[in-house]
Amino acid sequence: MASAEDVVVVNKQVLLKHFIPEGAPKETDMELVTTGTIRLRVPEGSNAVLLKNLYLSCDPYMRMRMTKHEEASYVDDFVPGAPITGFGVGKVVDSSHPDFKTGDYVWGLIGWEEYSLITKPQGLFKIHHTEIPLSYYTGILGMVGLTAYVGFYDICSPKKGERVFVSAAAGAVGQIVGQFAKQFGCYVVGSAGSDEKVNLLKTKFGFDEAFNYKKEPDLTKALKRYFPEGIDIYFENVGGPMLEAVLHNMRIKGRIAACGMISQYNLEKPEGVHNLFLIVGKRIRLEGFLVFDHYGSYPEFEEKVVQLIKEEKIKYLEDIVEGLENAPAALIGLFEGRNVGKQVVVVSRE
Amino acid sequence: MASAEDVVVVNKQVLLKHFIPEGAPKETDMELVTTGTIRLRVPEGSNAVLLKNLYLSCDPYMRMRMTKHEEASYVDDFVPGAPITGFGVGKVVDSSHPDFKTGDYVWGLIGWEEYSLITKPQGLFKIHHTEIPLSYYTGILGMVGLTAYVGFYDICSPKKGERVFVSAAAGAVGQIVGQFAKQFGCYVVGSAGSDEKVNLLKTKFGFDEAFNYKKEPDLTKALKRYFPEGIDIYFENVGGPMLEAVLHNMRIKGRIAACGMISQYNLEKPEGVHNLFLIVGKRIRLEGFLVFDHYGSYPEFEEKVVQLIKEEKIKYLEDIVEGLENAPAALIGLFEGRNVGKQVVVVSRE
Repeated sequence: MASAEDVVVVNKQVLLKHFIPEGAPKETDMELVTTGTIRLRVPEGSNAVLLKNLYLSCDPYMRMRMTKHEEASYVDDFVPGAPITGFGVGKVVDSSHPDFKTGDYVWGLIGWEEYSLITKPQGLFKIHHTEIPLSYYTGILGMVGLTAYVGFYDICSPKKGERVFVSAAAGAVGQIVGQFAKQFGCYVVGSAGSDEKVNLLKTKFGFDEAFNYKKEPDLTKALKRYFPEGIDIYFENVGGPMLEAVLHNMRIKGRIAACGMISQYNLEKPEGVHNLFLIVGKRIRLEGFLVFDHYGSYPEFEEKVVQLIKEEKIKYLEDIVEGLENAPAALIGLFEGRNVGKQVVVVSRE
Repeated sequence: MASAEDVVVVNKQVLLKHFIPEGAPKETDMELVTTGTIRLRVPEGSNAVLLKNLYLSCDPYMRMRMTKHEEASYVDDFVPGAPITGFGVGKVVDSSHPDFKTGDYVWGLIGWEEYSLITKPQGLFKIHHTEIPLSYYTGILGMVGLTAYVGFYDICSPKKGERVFVSAAAGAVGQIVGQFAKQFGCYVVGSAGSDEKVNLLKTKFGFDEAFNYKKEPDLTKALKRYFPEGIDIYFENVGGPMLEAVLHNMRIKGRIAACGMISQYNLEKPEGVHNLFLIVGKRIRLEGFLVFDHYGSYPEFEEKVVQLIKEEKIKYLEDIVEGLENAPAALIGLFEGRNVGKQVVVVSRE
C-alpha cells in the first residue's frame, strides 16, 4: 500500500518557543529547528497520511493560538516547543487512509515543517483542480475563500443593491468578499491601512470606493462620506473603534458578519465599543461565524470559485515569501499590515 | 356619527419642559399643567378618535425620547412644551374612524393627559378582552408582552432544555420572558437590583434561580455560578458590564436578543464592552429588535396570553401609581429601580 521509500530525512520545523500572553508576537518567539528527522512512511496499522508540505498560510487567527487559554477555544492553543500548525497545501508521500493516495495534492491543517504526519486525515481536503496554482488552496480555494463565501452569502443575507462595507479589505478574506459583493450587485467600499492597498482595492479588485483608515482622523465621518445613506452590510475583520464607527453609520436592519477583530488580538486590554445600544434601535444583527462550521459547503464552493478563476471573473493577489525560515517574519508582518494580499510561505514548489 | 356631547372640559397634561442631554431625568424636567381644555368631539371631516385616558405605561425607552437626536430614531423625540406620549389604555369618547366606536376600549400610543385626540388611529389596538384588568393592556397584553413574546420566541430561537439568562428580570418585560422560557422547557436565571425582586423572581415568577447584581463584586463569576456549562440564550435588557460578563459565559452558537440597555441610557459616555471578539470565536448572534416591527403578531399573541392569564399559567405584577400628577415620579423611579413589576399610572379607572 505504502509507495514511498522507507527512508529517514531531516525535517526542518518552525516551533513556538513559548506562549505570548499579550502584545505583538516577535520573530524571536518562534524558532527554526533543523535537527529533527522523519521517516517517510506512515506507521503500520495507522490511518495516517504523510505529506510533503508545499505552501503554508499565514492567518490572523493564529495570533490567538499563541496565548494560553484557560478554557477550550474553537482552535487549540499551540504547544510551546512543538511546530506551529496552520492551513497549508501538501503532496501525499505515503498514505494508509483510503481517501488519499501517494501523489495526491491536499489542503488542510498541517505543520510548519517540511513533512507532516497527519494522524487524523479527516481534516484534509483533496485538491481537485491542479490546473490552478496550488498555492491558491492556502487562500482563495481554501479556508480563506470559504470564509468569504459563507460569511457573505450565508451570514450577511445580502440583497441586490445593498451597501456593503469591508474592513481589512485588502486582506486575504476582504479582497474576496468585496468581489463577491460586487458580483452580487452591491455597492462596495473597503478600508485598508496604506495608499497602495487602497489603490489595489479600486483598480484591481473593483471596489466602488476605498479609503486609508490611518489617514482618517474621524472614522465615523469617513464612513458617512462613502455611505451618506448608511451601511446595510458590514463584513467585520478588525473590531474596536472601526466597529464603533460602523454602528453609528448602520442602517435599520443592517447585518454585521463578524469574521475577525484583528485590531484587538495583540492588546492586553481590548478597546471598548461604547454604542452597542444602537443595535437595539436599529435592529442590527451582529453574528460571529467560523469557517469550521461550514466545511459542508466546500465542494459547491470549490467548483463555483474554480470556474470564476478560470473565467477571470475574480482577481486574487498573493504575497509570497520563499522558504520555511522566513515564515515567522511573514506571520508577524500580518499584524503590522505589511502583506499586500494573501500571505503565503513556500516550503517547496513540488 | 359622533355620540359624545359637544362640550369642552379641562385637560390636565404632563409636559416635558426641555430636552435632557444626559444624566438621570428629574421630576422637575416635567410639569403638570391644568389650564388646557379640550372639546370632547373629533373634528368634522377628520378620521380621528378622541380618547378618555385610563392607564399610562412607564417604559425605559422613554428616556431616549427626552434627548434631542440629530438623526431620526425609531421613535420620535418628545416635543418640549408638549405632553409626553407613551403607551396607554383609553376609552373611546368620540370617533370618526370606522374601526372604533364610542365606548370601545383601546391601547396604543397616547398622551400623558386626561383626554387625547388621536389623529392617526392606525396605531391603536382594540381591546378584545375587557374581562381582564384593563391596565394589563399597558403591559402584559400590550407592547411589553408582545416584546417578550417576539423577543423570546422569534429572536432567541429557543430549544427545549437550553439555559436562559434574563437581566432586569423583575422588570415588565423580564418577568414575562422568564415565564415564557420556563413554559418552553428552559432553565432560567434572572438578575435584579434588590433582594425583594430576587425573591419575587424565585417565588412568584418561577425562575430557577435569581441573584441581586448589586451584591455581586464580579458578574462574570456570578454567572459562572449559575451557568457552570454556559448560557445559550441571553435576553438583554441592561447592557454595559453585564453584557461583557455574559459574553464571557456564553456557549458556542449562543443567541442574545437585545431588547434594551437601560444601564446606559442616562450616561453621557456609555460604558465600553471590551470582549466582543468572543462573538467570533463562539459564533454568537447578537440581534436587536423592536416591538414596532412585530405588530402583525399581535392578534395571535393576544389570544394566547389571555388564555394563559385565565388559566393562571402566567403571573403578572403591576406597580400602580394613582393620578396623572404622580406620573413624572413614577417614570423617574424606573431608572432608580424603584418599581417592582410593571409601572402603571392610573389617570382614571373608568
